[in-house]
Amino acid sequence: MSFLKNAWYVAAWGREVPTEKLLPRILLGEPVVFFRDEKGAVAGIEDRCPHRFAPLHEGTLEGGQVRCRYHGLEFNGAGACVRNPHGNGAIPSAARVKSYRVVEKDLIVWVWMSDESAADESLIPDFSFLTSVPDTARNTGYLPTAANYQLLADNIMDLSHVDYLHPTTLGGGAMTRSRPEVTESGTQVRIKWTVKDDVVPPSFAHHMPDPNAKADQTTQVVWYPPGYMNLSTSVEVADGQDICTNNLHLMTPETEERTHYFFANTRNFVQEDGEFNRMLDTILINVFSEEDKPMVEAQQRNMGTSDLFSLRPVLLACDGGAVRARRTLETLIANEQAMRAQP
Amino acid sequence: MSFLKNAWYVAAWGREVPTEKLLPRILLGEPVVFFRDEKGAVAGIEDRCPHRFAPLHEGTLEGGQVRCRYHGLEFNGAGACVRNPHGNGAIPSAARVKSYRVVEKDLIVWVWMSDESAADESLIPDFSFLTSVPDTARNTGYLPTAANYQLLADNIMDLSHVDYLHPTTLGGGAMTRSRPEVTESGTQVRIKWTVKDDVVPPSFAHHMPDPNAKADQTTQVVWYPPGYMNLSTSVEVADGQDICTNNLHLMTPETEERTHYFFANTRNFVQEDGEFNRMLDTILINVFSEEDKPMVEAQQRNMGTSDLFSLRPVLLACDGGAVRARRTLETLIANEQAMRAQP
Amino acid sequence: MSFLKNAWYVAAWGREVPTEKLLPRILLGEPVVFFRDEKGAVAGIEDRCPHRFAPLHEGTLEGGQVRCRYHGLEFNGAGACVRNPHGNGAIPSAARVKSYRVVEKDLIVWVWMSDESAADESLIPDFSFLTSVPDTARNTGYLPTAANYQLLADNIMDLSHVDYLHPTTLGGGAMTRSRPEVTESGTQVRIKWTVKDDVVPPSFAHHMPDPNAKADQTTQVVWYPPGYMNLSTSVEVADGQDICTNNLHLMTPETEERTHYFFANTRNFVQEDGEFNRMLDTILINVFSEEDKPMVEAQQRNMGTSDLFSLRPVLLACDGGAVRARRTLETLIANEQAMRAQP
Repeated sequence: MSFLKNAWYVAAWGREVPTEKLLPRILLGEPVVFFRDEKGAVAGIEDRCPHRFAPLHEGTLEGGQVRCRYHGLEFNGAGACVRNPHGNGAIPSAARVKSYRVVEKDLIVWVWMSDESAADESLIPDFSFLTSVPDTARNTGYLPTAANYQLLADNIMDLSHVDYLHPTTLGGGAMTRSRPEVTESGTQVRIKWTVKDDVVPPSFAHHMPDPNAKADQTTQVVWYPPGYMNLSTSVEVADGQDICTNNLHLMTPETEERTHYFFANTRNFVQEDGEFNRMLDTILINVFSEEDKPMVEAQQRNMGTSDLFSLRPVLLACDGGAVRARRTLETLIANEQAMRAQP
Repeated sequence: MSFLKNAWYVAAWGREVPTEKLLPRILLGEPVVFFRDEKGAVAGIEDRCPHRFAPLHEGTLEGGQVRCRYHGLEFNGAGACVRNPHGNGAIPSAARVKSYRVVEKDLIVWVWMSDESAADESLIPDFSFLTSVPDTARNTGYLPTAANYQLLADNIMDLSHVDYLHPTTLGGGAMTRSRPEVTESGTQVRIKWTVKDDVVPPSFAHHMPDPNAKADQTTQVVWYPPGYMNLSTSVEVADGQDICTNNLHLMTPETEERTHYFFANTRNFVQEDGEFNRMLDTILINVFSEEDKPMVEAQQRNMGTSDLFSLRPVLLACDGGAVRARRTLETLIANEQAMRAQP
Repeated sequence: MSFLKNAWYVAAWGREVPTEKLLPRILLGEPVVFFRDEKGAVAGIEDRCPHRFAPLHEGTLEGGQVRCRYHGLEFNGAGACVRNPHGNGAIPSAARVKSYRVVEKDLIVWVWMSDESAADESLIPDFSFLTSVPDTARNTGYLPTAANYQLLADNIMDLSHVDYLHPTTLGGGAMTRSRPEVTESGTQVRIKWTVKDDVVPPSFAHHMPDPNAKADQTTQVVWYPPGYMNLSTSVEVADGQDICTNNLHLMTPETEERTHYFFANTRNFVQEDGEFNRMLDTILINVFSEEDKPMVEAQQRNMGTSDLFSLRPVLLACDGGAVRARRTLETLIANEQAMRAQP
């Protein structure tokens, strides 16, 4: 598996790691268990006891320490064995597990998958918009998916798919008719679709003064390596008045062929209605799990273990953003591996 | 996978391809989608969009053209991309999928799996007996099976198995006691069991004047490469009066270890009773799915990926027909591969 | 797969082979079918017809002979084909299957997996204690498990696990606090835990005059290659008066990654109460299937196909017995393979 190792990945939503619970998750092929220490900070350590390879997440958490359920070794958030109940109680020097640098920010649990020493918190993108809206104007979800994370990124990078895959909710045909502009800035790739006086997608039309009226619309996706995307949409309701959503689509590889797909949605309208928010949550989960997920999983099955480009896909005008993101990531991984290979 | 490529295979019953529906089916390891064009003729094309490898069968069919559900490319029955809704609408020259020669005849959808140019319709066997009886005297079925197609052919080529596997319906012991005659004619293999004054199988006995009486019986199987069989049976009811069935067992490889098993049954008795016909349909499906299918699937599991002869099976008198059919097919495949290897 | 071949393995409990039934079981990767001959003696033969590789256990048993359900060949307990109903009835000399030496003793069906000629019944250990108690003081069980048999043996060889995995039934903390003594005698490995005035496990405490009182306790496991263990426990109730259990944990490889786990429990108290016995049966099955089995199966998944020592486990004081048993078995297998390699 060749992943970018010196990178922050999304491990979980913060709410998935409640106090006194152990959350197991395989990231980039490595089994990790997440939990909160005594101060409430999230820790992540290798989910495999070095004694007999039992999964630590089956154990118990007390005072920020994980006790293996098989023979009782205890580990702290730094991966050190802090108690051996057997024999004279001496702790073998090899009795330790890998620990990971973990940061909780903007409701998200971020994890650095390479050497802790290289972890730089300032590289974590600012998604504070998530907490700038009331809780009733935000949805966050998690969808484990049987496809490579780059296929899931491609899905967001080519939003023309909404017109075919989501015609009753997110797509109205205008995305296909518009010409996306792709720009790059550092390692970010930005795509912008500008729509003039065209059909409004069904999910927005409900909130327009005249649901059948056409409108100006702007959609933008910003891609950050290794695979997180900020998607913002804006539809003009009246002169100088827009309804907007601001979204995240965050892809973390579980393995080469499985992805932890996290998504979030915020909006600047109907912000205080909890029931509406729950309805929207149901709709989003339904769209992603019943439409996107089966499609990318079918792609993965059709592609097998082949790399996308090795299959010589026919590229269309709508592929520009996805291809640039893939090329950027390819370069980053190649550079990183070249650095490693140096003496 | 080494299959005979220059050959007609059974892809489906015609009724499995209704107007405006897309039927996906993997044949010889290749994903194909079948559908009817505007004139009602069945077409078959590669079931994988060349853009992003989405399965075309998830798309929509309009006016004989398949629209991919992911980004909207449209293909006709010849495999050509006929619409690209993106950018300036130009169609890349590589935007095409493989198409297959398809012929619908005698209720069956036949497909030629090699170059269309080599497809010769006159090689399709004549199974017009299927349509020469009233609809209420015919059953047709489809049973996907987790076993190599040659194991399913062997099952029909050695009908002594009815005495052990189907003792309450199709077998009465007489097949084992008779001596099958095997003859070859071109690439066909014919086996004939002639039974004199012996026990009548339960399924026929019901229709005899005296269900317990013994009778003369004739059973014949004609095998055609790569794997279709016409099985006819005749039981003498009175002097010069026979009750007969005429059947098809048609095996198409899905992969080396999976088979599309199609079967049909017609008869010269109780021809106008729809309720009897439905009852017979239930019995046949039950026998094939509860008795034959589990047995050949167990054989396949016991054999793994090994070739039958490499496991050195003990051959019995009843194996003559099956062995000749296997040898014929082996020769045809070897000849075809030798032709391909020529400069 | 490298197993000890010149060894007696436990194939089944005798009760699992009722008259006129066929019991299929894969042992050391070999499919075997067990049944009783006309005299009631258990026979074991290869579970694969040499004609077309059908599983013989799907057939019928009559007069101690197995008839294949596919084409009717019949085999006796020595693996010889004794009837061919086809053609002139001659039996091909190759028409035979492997037969195994089988001995039923102490309620257990033992099988010798190598050449019958080398099978020495005197090597079968004496577990007659099983039948020396009333039926209402004995439980026997079978639990197929998706883990290597040595992981299941390790589980019994390091009984400190009861304190962590079974705290509400079998573990009270005393096993971890005691220091096991490991001794070897021939190819047997013996571990003894001596506990002085310590907490009594919940399952024993119920039967003490004072359930909260501490007591002296002794636990002993004797391991025999390739993987059977006799576990006996004793808790002092009053001066010179003990409540005791005597148990078997018998591990037979199905494959490298699956095990037939047989267990038995007898006791010297509440011996005549059938209802209590059934309740105990339920508790034991529950503990083994809900606690031990998931844990060793998780270990197996975490270890993949790697050998334990190749993963460099951190060894603790409690591992002494398991490591000695593994080393003994390793030597026995190496010696056996060296013998085979000799001219």
